[in-house]
Amino acid sequence: MTQNPHGSTGPGSTGSTGSAGVPAVTFDDVRDAARRLAGVAHRTPVLRSRTLDALVGAEVHLKCENFQRIGAFKFRGAYNALSRLSPQQLARGVAGYSSGNHAQAVALAARELGSHAVIVMPEDSPKSKKDATAGYGAEILTYDRYTEDRAALGRKIAEERGLALIPPYEHPHIIAGQGTTALELIEETGPLDALLVPVGGGGLMAGAATAATAMVPGIRMIGVEPEAGDDTRRSLAAGHRVTVPVPRTIADGQAVETPGELTFSINRRLLDSVVLVSDDEIRAAMKLAFERLKIVTEPSGASALAALLAGRIDPLPVPGRPGRSPHPPRLGVIISGGNVGLERFLELLG
Amino acid sequence: MTQNPHGSTGPGSTGSTGSAGVPAVTFDDVRDAARRLAGVAHRTPVLRSRTLDALVGAEVHLKCENFQRIGAFKFRGAYNALSRLSPQQLARGVAGYSSGNHAQAVALAARELGSHAVIVMPEDSPKSKKDATAGYGAEILTYDRYTEDRAALGRKIAEERGLALIPPYEHPHIIAGQGTTALELIEETGPLDALLVPVGGGGLMAGAATAATAMVPGIRMIGVEPEAGDDTRRSLAAGHRVTVPVPRTIADGQAVETPGELTFSINRRLLDSVVLVSDDEIRAAMKLAFERLKIVTEPSGASALAALLAGRIDPLPVPGRPGRSPHPPRLGVIISGGNVGLERFLELLG
Repeated sequence: MTQNPHGSTGPGSTGSTGSAGVPAVTFDDVRDAARRLAGVAHRTPVLRSRTLDALVGAEVHLKCENFQRIGAFKFRGAYNALSRLSPQQLARGVAGYSSGNHAQAVALAARELGSHAVIVMPEDSPKSKKDATAGYGAEILTYDRYTEDRAALGRKIAEERGLALIPPYEHPHIIAGQGTTALELIEETGPLDALLVPVGGGGLMAGAATAATAMVPGIRMIGVEPEAGDDTRRSLAAGHRVTVPVPRTIADGQAVETPGELTFSINRRLLDSVVLVSDDEIRAAMKLAFERLKIVTEPSGASALAALLAGRIDPLPVPGRPGRSPHPPRLGVIISGGNVGLERFLELLG
Repeated sequence: MTQNPHGSTGPGSTGSTGSAGVPAVTFDDVRDAARRLAGVAHRTPVLRSRTLDALVGAEVHLKCENFQRIGAFKFRGAYNALSRLSPQQLARGVAGYSSGNHAQAVALAARELGSHAVIVMPEDSPKSKKDATAGYGAEILTYDRYTEDRAALGRKIAEERGLALIPPYEHPHIIAGQGTTALELIEETGPLDALLVPVGGGGLMAGAATAATAMVPGIRMIGVEPEAGDDTRRSLAAGHRVTVPVPRTIADGQAVETPGELTFSINRRLLDSVVLVSDDEIRAAMKLAFERLKIVTEPSGASALAALLAGRIDPLPVPGRPGRSPHPPRLGVIISGGNVGLERFLELLG
């Protein structure tokens, strides 16, 4: 792939571009990512629960990315992006900025590929997250989140040191990597009537929608945002990207003020709708996931499940397969992550 | 199968008997159980964690029966046993006594097979367990655990009403059903050097050992008991079944005073050793399972993992496959259940 002068692996790095002048991501890109991830990322299990099915009146298939390496889907995109860097670039290293799962994802992907990662994190990040990122061998640079711009800082450091900057979602290789979640899910379940996906920056949704709509024509793609971080929903309504106030929500992985340009260009084309969930609905979903499904979810990780449990998907999709007697709709739900310490979990649900 | 006059499906119901005059359980019985359970029980996922592997210096495969129906492996044995009753017996109904997972297992198996279950439970059982059992349509009879004998009460009710009594472990069909855990695990992983299994009454271990030793000659079968409930370990040392004082342990599913006659006759033949874990070691394993593996385990469910983490398996098995360069030992660990409410979980770990 092409390296731009700053060592960035920005959107300019794919050949084809979409109608808005931003690069397209195709199902072939997702399949290619799946080949790169084989044997490196976990093929995470798809869980079923008859209790859950009975509760919501649907056949629900939970793609459990909380069991992914680093505890969230983010490893898929980061590894896919890094795996495409040249040996020279890997030797120089990579940079990322994140207070959350993307930091660990870039750090681990760099270690797996023999590279070196520099991660820009807020100085008040939880110690557990800094420790986990450092544990994968990354160098951590902290900044003051109230006075400094992390994106500018990331770019500056990447430029100074010749590092490839790996953005959290605004990149075709990141999006294609995240799309392998839906690819694996549908390979296992067969056609689904709808797929529910948490939306933060929109990378997971853009990738999942690229794969799912190619595999199952007519599938309904439903995004889920926290009430306080409804930037994608507002942007879809407005027809262009809008910015919302800094979201206050327990779903920290979805506390995004504005959708990515690339992710939004894909999502506006492929999404059916975005529904919202409250923090209390997310808490209820985390509790049900714990007690009935026996899985640990972080707030963002449980938001799509929360939308289903809270009746936000109304009406449920009408099963679309012809020639069959009526049956409950078949829904996929992406559980996107499980990185929540026991103490924080107790704080949220205790 | 033969019904005895009391409608019990007791050990007399299989054709072959072992050397001690108790019925044998064979690998064919386990395979037959697997056929009966197909499409009814979940084929539970086998999870891997590189963090865990690095911690213990082994390749660890976790068979997650916390994801089984009713939240524990018990459904396998109960369903297998009930599925062998005659239509007439199913119409009359079944009885079980349990304060724990076996109650829900019999209740759900009865519902699945169109039968009716009567469950004898202590009157001070947690409301959540009584509710869950009643939720599967069972009739609950309570008794005073300090003055009444639940086994005698169960027999009396079975006799009076013509119900088939389904014991929690002392039955060849129960044992064969539980053995399908190991069958599925090894089908997925290939040969293992050792398999770690929680031991309470010994039914899970007897079934797992029957399957695993048939599939992998030379596999080390390692039982794990809580320190306070070491009846099987003491019995193995004594060469006969011994009784320990009423165990005080958080691992309520393993708080057994004496091994079953049938289960012990199998386990004494097939087990390599039994190791013990403290309640604090179980707590530490539950915490690691939560934070790193993202799964919810009940104390008994985490005990085999606890033994591994606490270094109780020492030395780790030497990999036994010839013609290969040295590699870390390949271990199977059965996570036997995840039925712990959020409140109780906080009480244990908060």
